[in-house]
Amino acid sequence: MKIRTGGVTAAKGFEAAGVEAGIKYKDRKDMALIYSQKPCVLAGTFTSNVVKAAPVLWDKKVVEESPFGQAVIVNAGIANACTGKEGYEYCKRTALRASAVLHIPEESILVASTGVIGMQLPIDRIEAGVEKLAKTKNDTIDAGRQAAEAIMTTDTRSKQVAVEIDLNGIKVTLGGMSKGSGMIHPNMCTMLAFITTDAVISKEALTKVVKEDVADTFNMISVDGDTSTNDTLLVMANGMAENEEIKEGTPEYEAFKEALHYINETLAKMMAGDGEGATALLEAKVIGAATKEDARRLSRSVVCSNLTKAAIYGHDANFGRMICALGYSGVSFDPDKIELFFESKAGRIQVCKDGISTNYSEEEASRILSEPEVTILADMKMGNETATAWGCDLTYDYVKINADYRS
Amino acid sequence: MKIRTGGVTAAKGFEAAGVEAGIKYKDRKDMALIYSQKPCVLAGTFTSNVVKAAPVLWDKKVVEESPFGQAVIVNAGIANACTGKEGYEYCKRTALRASAVLHIPEESILVASTGVIGMQLPIDRIEAGVEKLAKTKNDTIDAGRQAAEAIMTTDTRSKQVAVEIDLNGIKVTLGGMSKGSGMIHPNMCTMLAFITTDAVISKEALTKVVKEDVADTFNMISVDGDTSTNDTLLVMANGMAENEEIKEGTPEYEAFKEALHYINETLAKMMAGDGEGATALLEAKVIGAATKEDARRLSRSVVCSNLTKAAIYGHDANFGRMICALGYSGVSFDPDKIELFFESKAGRIQVCKDGISTNYSEEEASRILSEPEVTILADMKMGNETATAWGCDLTYDYVKINADYRS
Repeated sequence: MKIRTGGVTAAKGFEAAGVEAGIKYKDRKDMALIYSQKPCVLAGTFTSNVVKAAPVLWDKKVVEESPFGQAVIVNAGIANACTGKEGYEYCKRTALRASAVLHIPEESILVASTGVIGMQLPIDRIEAGVEKLAKTKNDTIDAGRQAAEAIMTTDTRSKQVAVEIDLNGIKVTLGGMSKGSGMIHPNMCTMLAFITTDAVISKEALTKVVKEDVADTFNMISVDGDTSTNDTLLVMANGMAENEEIKEGTPEYEAFKEALHYINETLAKMMAGDGEGATALLEAKVIGAATKEDARRLSRSVVCSNLTKAAIYGHDANFGRMICALGYSGVSFDPDKIELFFESKAGRIQVCKDGISTNYSEEEASRILSEPEVTILADMKMGNETATAWGCDLTYDYVKINADYRS
Repeated sequence: MKIRTGGVTAAKGFEAAGVEAGIKYKDRKDMALIYSQKPCVLAGTFTSNVVKAAPVLWDKKVVEESPFGQAVIVNAGIANACTGKEGYEYCKRTALRASAVLHIPEESILVASTGVIGMQLPIDRIEAGVEKLAKTKNDTIDAGRQAAEAIMTTDTRSKQVAVEIDLNGIKVTLGGMSKGSGMIHPNMCTMLAFITTDAVISKEALTKVVKEDVADTFNMISVDGDTSTNDTLLVMANGMAENEEIKEGTPEYEAFKEALHYINETLAKMMAGDGEGATALLEAKVIGAATKEDARRLSRSVVCSNLTKAAIYGHDANFGRMICALGYSGVSFDPDKIELFFESKAGRIQVCKDGISTNYSEEEASRILSEPEVTILADMKMGNETATAWGCDLTYDYVKINADYRS
């Protein structure tokens, strides 16, 4: 596997664009397009929230019923959630306009929105934006970057990644982009992620590999415990690499899975580390759990704990808060066996053994927690299963951003 | 039912004290005693966290196995959690010393701790504190107030309440005190609450009435989603009112239940409103839910949502965040039916009807949300069940308090 530069335009035959459409923000790009020169096999996963935004309902239909997909139109600023029939009608109008200017079927067009809930989209500006996008789209790395920038809301950095694998002498590329940053929580978050690949792969195999990997990547991040109405992950495979079709149970499937995992994990970690107001990426690694699901629940509980997150912000080795978070995760374990370590570039320290403090050095522990990426490692001593979850610290800026997000 | 002044010393035969023992804080009271002149029937509920602090393990044993209880020793500053066998031994030593100076059996003594997890208690200072408490205890209202002050950690106000009821011409009194303020979440929180009554009531009836009422009071508050290792509610009934024994299914049981509910709800709301850094008490009232459990889950989900809490702090009528929180509560409902209202002393406004915005006045909504007590009312239109949960806003000060709680 080779890391490549770029994002959604890294794979063969994909084009992109990012433009200023004036949806809600001023003087910044707020609409993006991903376009494939050939029809794509689609896979997608969507928010578990009972309240699903209109574009989520639209995309579920396209992914489930359309024979293929070929373009995605994204806007930032307004989420098109809690907008009723009018909101769904605007998805349709967006797709109709895109169909007209891109010369592809309406039912091959996906839409995605992120931003404030409860406001209607300014559909005229959306339609004008679609025309601009169609005019400026191209297959350069720069076009991918512009799309990645256009989908940001409170993100401080755009998020892209691309890799290349060799399948029996044929080069297959995967690239992706995503946006975080508030309302991020396990089970799909105000998270939009788009992955493109030129691989030849069946819809069944693509759906399976995406579903399997999401459980250990996008569903293991949390910024604030709020699962949004708009979470969407879309994967498009246009087959232009002309490899032999990837089938389940083959070495090629495993190679593709590994590459997809790298893309997913990288985007997921980028989102967690760029959570609203975050100064640090928090990784919670659980080993020695009795079951895989236990390991996932335990590690997620730690990255979701406000008290743990605030302690990380303060570089405070207050390990009791992490033990406490493990304890209320809903997983049963023996508190008298647990071991806890802090890790970062600055070193590694054991703070808890057999459920009690090791009398570690507070200064040493605080130094380790002062890095921009810190890991809390918990050994449950209950079995052999492991899982990792990612989150961020809780800061003044999180409160600031969210106390007046709309102004 | 008549509201009385005072707290744990309001009922006949109860004494209390609060002293400076130098456990962790300087120049403030940090140990408290509640003492009954006669043996008490006990009921208690404890944290659901798998990691239970040593005093929780001790008290569970006393409540379940001892024929009666007669005193509670509380310390603030150190939680005696994640402290292994040594921590449990310190509970025993505390009880032994209290037994010696109060002349009551060791197994009639309850202990409770709140504060930092992972540190051992300075047992010498605890034992010295017990002696001071025994010397200063008395049955005045002022002694109750001193005890309520001594159990505070990051609380900004002490919390007390007392009521009096008439059972067939006999006056029965209930009084209580509690402390919150971080690590507060449904299912018993870093919450200590102690309720005393002079009622004559059987252990079975007392246990039942406490358990029933906790589900709608203490288990419906959240400050930060962190369920602590130490949560404890203890109820002591010493029978000194000499009423006819309260039995289930009688009007007297209902009267007692109503009084206990008032005590529990008042203490629970005091804790929620005094959550770490809070500027407002947030009440989420759900009506029209399909089941009682649905109503509870929905209302708790709203008061637990960081994004909702931050919006309340910003007086921002961002109702989509509340709809979103209802949506990820795990309860199924029809998003297109939901209605949402904001209420406070400043008025009432409907912000959402049939799942979409009512085009309400933002200024009017913001004015309503600027009060120190605000209510979010959601009508689910799915049935007739209701529930109320309480929490607080999320502020800079919450982060400040928790980023460096230990220093």
